[in-house]
Amino acid sequence: MEKKLTLEALARMVEGELSGDPALEIFGFGPLDSAGPGDITFLVNAAYLEQAVGSGATAILVGKNIDIEADNVVRVDDAYLASAIIQNYFLKQPFKTGGIHASAVIGKNCSLGREITIGAQVAIGDRVTLGEQVEICAGTVIGDDVTIGDGCTIRANVTIERGCELGRRVIIHPGCVIGGDGYGYATDKRGVHVKRPQLGTVRIGDDVEIGANSCVDRATFGMTWIKSGTKIDNLVQVAHNVVVGENSLLVAQVGISGSTTLGRNVVLGGQTGTVGHISIGDGTMVAGKSAVHGNQPAGARLCGVPAIDGKQWFKCVTVFSRLPDLLKDVKRLKKEIAHLQEQDESTHKEG
Amino acid sequence: MEKKLTLEALARMVEGELSGDPALEIFGFGPLDSAGPGDITFLVNAAYLEQAVGSGATAILVGKNIDIEADNVVRVDDAYLASAIIQNYFLKQPFKTGGIHASAVIGKNCSLGREITIGAQVAIGDRVTLGEQVEICAGTVIGDDVTIGDGCTIRANVTIERGCELGRRVIIHPGCVIGGDGYGYATDKRGVHVKRPQLGTVRIGDDVEIGANSCVDRATFGMTWIKSGTKIDNLVQVAHNVVVGENSLLVAQVGISGSTTLGRNVVLGGQTGTVGHISIGDGTMVAGKSAVHGNQPAGARLCGVPAIDGKQWFKCVTVFSRLPDLLKDVKRLKKEIAHLQEQDESTHKEG
Amino acid sequence: MEKKLTLEALARMVEGELSGDPALEIFGFGPLDSAGPGDITFLVNAAYLEQAVGSGATAILVGKNIDIEADNVVRVDDAYLASAIIQNYFLKQPFKTGGIHASAVIGKNCSLGREITIGAQVAIGDRVTLGEQVEICAGTVIGDDVTIGDGCTIRANVTIERGCELGRRVIIHPGCVIGGDGYGYATDKRGVHVKRPQLGTVRIGDDVEIGANSCVDRATFGMTWIKSGTKIDNLVQVAHNVVVGENSLLVAQVGISGSTTLGRNVVLGGQTGTVGHISIGDGTMVAGKSAVHGNQPAGARLCGVPAIDGKQWFKCVTVFSRLPDLLKDVKRLKKEIAHLQEQDESTHKEG
Repeated sequence: MEKKLTLEALARMVEGELSGDPALEIFGFGPLDSAGPGDITFLVNAAYLEQAVGSGATAILVGKNIDIEADNVVRVDDAYLASAIIQNYFLKQPFKTGGIHASAVIGKNCSLGREITIGAQVAIGDRVTLGEQVEICAGTVIGDDVTIGDGCTIRANVTIERGCELGRRVIIHPGCVIGGDGYGYATDKRGVHVKRPQLGTVRIGDDVEIGANSCVDRATFGMTWIKSGTKIDNLVQVAHNVVVGENSLLVAQVGISGSTTLGRNVVLGGQTGTVGHISIGDGTMVAGKSAVHGNQPAGARLCGVPAIDGKQWFKCVTVFSRLPDLLKDVKRLKKEIAHLQEQDESTHKEG
Repeated sequence: MEKKLTLEALARMVEGELSGDPALEIFGFGPLDSAGPGDITFLVNAAYLEQAVGSGATAILVGKNIDIEADNVVRVDDAYLASAIIQNYFLKQPFKTGGIHASAVIGKNCSLGREITIGAQVAIGDRVTLGEQVEICAGTVIGDDVTIGDGCTIRANVTIERGCELGRRVIIHPGCVIGGDGYGYATDKRGVHVKRPQLGTVRIGDDVEIGANSCVDRATFGMTWIKSGTKIDNLVQVAHNVVVGENSLLVAQVGISGSTTLGRNVVLGGQTGTVGHISIGDGTMVAGKSAVHGNQPAGARLCGVPAIDGKQWFKCVTVFSRLPDLLKDVKRLKKEIAHLQEQDESTHKEG
Repeated sequence: MEKKLTLEALARMVEGELSGDPALEIFGFGPLDSAGPGDITFLVNAAYLEQAVGSGATAILVGKNIDIEADNVVRVDDAYLASAIIQNYFLKQPFKTGGIHASAVIGKNCSLGREITIGAQVAIGDRVTLGEQVEICAGTVIGDDVTIGDGCTIRANVTIERGCELGRRVIIHPGCVIGGDGYGYATDKRGVHVKRPQLGTVRIGDDVEIGANSCVDRATFGMTWIKSGTKIDNLVQVAHNVVVGENSLLVAQVGISGSTTLGRNVVLGGQTGTVGHISIGDGTMVAGKSAVHGNQPAGARLCGVPAIDGKQWFKCVTVFSRLPDLLKDVKRLKKEIAHLQEQDESTHKEG
């Protein structure tokens, strides 16, 4: 289904300032090197200014920080954001109801929306609820009593274990495991680990996206909870009873230990870990490869193992890389002081 | 199937001291906030003492370190352990033989226990042996010549490659890969990597549990071996020819390089790594995010990259976070000493 | 199909020096502890010299650095490389065309080689191209418009998303996800993350091997590109628009952030990470557990977080582990200098 939008409507959609012909029709969005007539392209880096002006695009979306002379320009505060909004507008297609593939297996007493697509080789348990416009891709396995809200996309080879609950418009990428058992044992006097039953579930809010091969464990009791708007990258580990606040970002290979709570809009950089049973305040940002060892106030900026204030950490690692010199300096100082002390003693003796 | 136990029998089961009515019947186990009449609940943190006393539970399981006044109390050394034992008692159900789902594919010359459950969309190779009371969940793929012992649960979308051997009561969580090729290459003069065939297998002992999306590679020759009682969390990497001793714990996102041997009751914290070809002694504990670079004696307590004695590491990182001050101090000392040296010289000249 | 080779032919195959009977026939390759008559075995460590001489093997492959007296010996520069070449010769079997399993689902308008094997429970989308001698193992899901070249092996439960392109002789291990969406969002003023469409693909060159449960994300625009000969271990994350040069090695649990470019023959040790949008030169080697924060010239040897010159890093961590002593030294120096300053003042007063 082809879409179009006047430049005026498009500028309004992204709260931009238009210079050019407001009635011009735009039919698509393209990057600098492939945009053609009818397209709008976007420029975020002044280094590509000539390429933008020379591109075949009908209009250019540009950040207000960049000076550009062209016939049709839409100026915005954040060209990345505006381009994402425009792209999504042009790419959005009505849901294609594919129905249930002949090879899919559906359990008993399920409640399925009328408009759904269930792919080949899918296995769905009993008493599963799927909302409207849900797509379950090939090879995915969904346990008993799972609820999946309207507009969700569950990609291929995903596993969602029994009783987990997904909100609306959630995207789960291939290979994810939602609701696997939490890692909990009690150890007896012989060193044998007795499994603590993991009886809780996982709740995932609206508009959450979870990257490929990530894992969100079910709670021991109660629930592990990923709140609305949070985006999780690939190969991330979320342990039992963790709560992740709204609109947080967990970059690839992050690991969050059990019962830790993250606030809203927390950002954990790639390969960062946290210990369990701590609380990380709203808006905290932790650089990649860090390890958070204790509670953190809202708005903290952290780095390192254990994570400390990010600016302080950068100063510390700068000194770290010069430690051999520092050691030498201190050794020399020791000698010099020893020498001075000798001199001093002899002076005083002399004195 | 409902279960019940007198308070006396229950106290005996966990080697606890009973105060209260030994003939009282207990029908279940519940956490503080949901336990009701007929339940036993448990208390591990004195902060929740009032909630425990006020809960609707018929009896309370409590660590000996906590003073509590209530009608029916079972006092134990380790309330976590005792509660795990009691919960497992109440939750344990007889194995439900589900048979083989119509969509499952079973190879030739397999030997399957009489009581088994094989889920939808499963693919099992040739000459596979499954013991009694084995459950293979939907979407799992089992290669030729695999042996799986009595009481194992292989959850959804797992892959077990050819020839691997699992003991009894092993639990493999979704997305695991057991027996993928080890990572081994020889590099020629042009920098081209020639694959070294990975001809060994994986052996997994009894009562091992492996978390979601973890990987245990097959050996180059011989076997990679996870010994009985070891518990592995999610997204863990165990390379070829690794041996993990009994009752060890590998927390999420740990990586163990090829041919490394771990003793019994070793604990590796989350995101820890080890180099290859080393030996880590019995009972060694390594804090999360560490990297073990060399052989370790039994009972070591390690932390850091490279891992050193844990107590020493904590002292070192404390100084690390003050390195800029230390640097300033040394700079000032240099100046002061230079000044003293000048004074000294002039004194001696004067002298 | 049994194979044989004269010792002369075998020596020629690995550019080795033969001492012994050139006409002897060799039928296989075995490790020291299991090689028997008709086999060649190999020795890389002089500690096992007696075992090698005493083994039942007909011939011994040995590095030139080891002195050995035996009847039939092939001496080579690199015994690992030579043994890999010989093993591969003996193990290589003609491709077994298994055809398409009855339970597999194949989409419309696919182009499949004549000699292929498609396993049970496989789901293949529309317009997929599979070359000759391709094996797709059980449970794997291949999206629309994917192209897979001659001689590729895609193991079980893999997901290859729409439009990705694999070269020849690529091996993808179980659980991998190729072409999942890149992790890209633009954030509005309320802190809500707007998904940036991920419209590119993944291209994988010839002779690439990717370990279990690894992820290679599709590009935002254009392509993520793993060039020929690169070998990737398990649980590795390759983000959108990354380019990995020829014959590189990414060890387990490595993470490469978006738009970073690696040269040829780069080696990243286990659990290493890189930030995005940097360039790492040919032949760079980064030790495990490091984090690369900036562009790197060819041939760099790096270690640490952030990664610095490896030799320097080792010196620095040595000092790090003695930081508490260094701090004490500096404190004592401060006191001693203060004392000297007092003395000095009094001397000068006295003077």
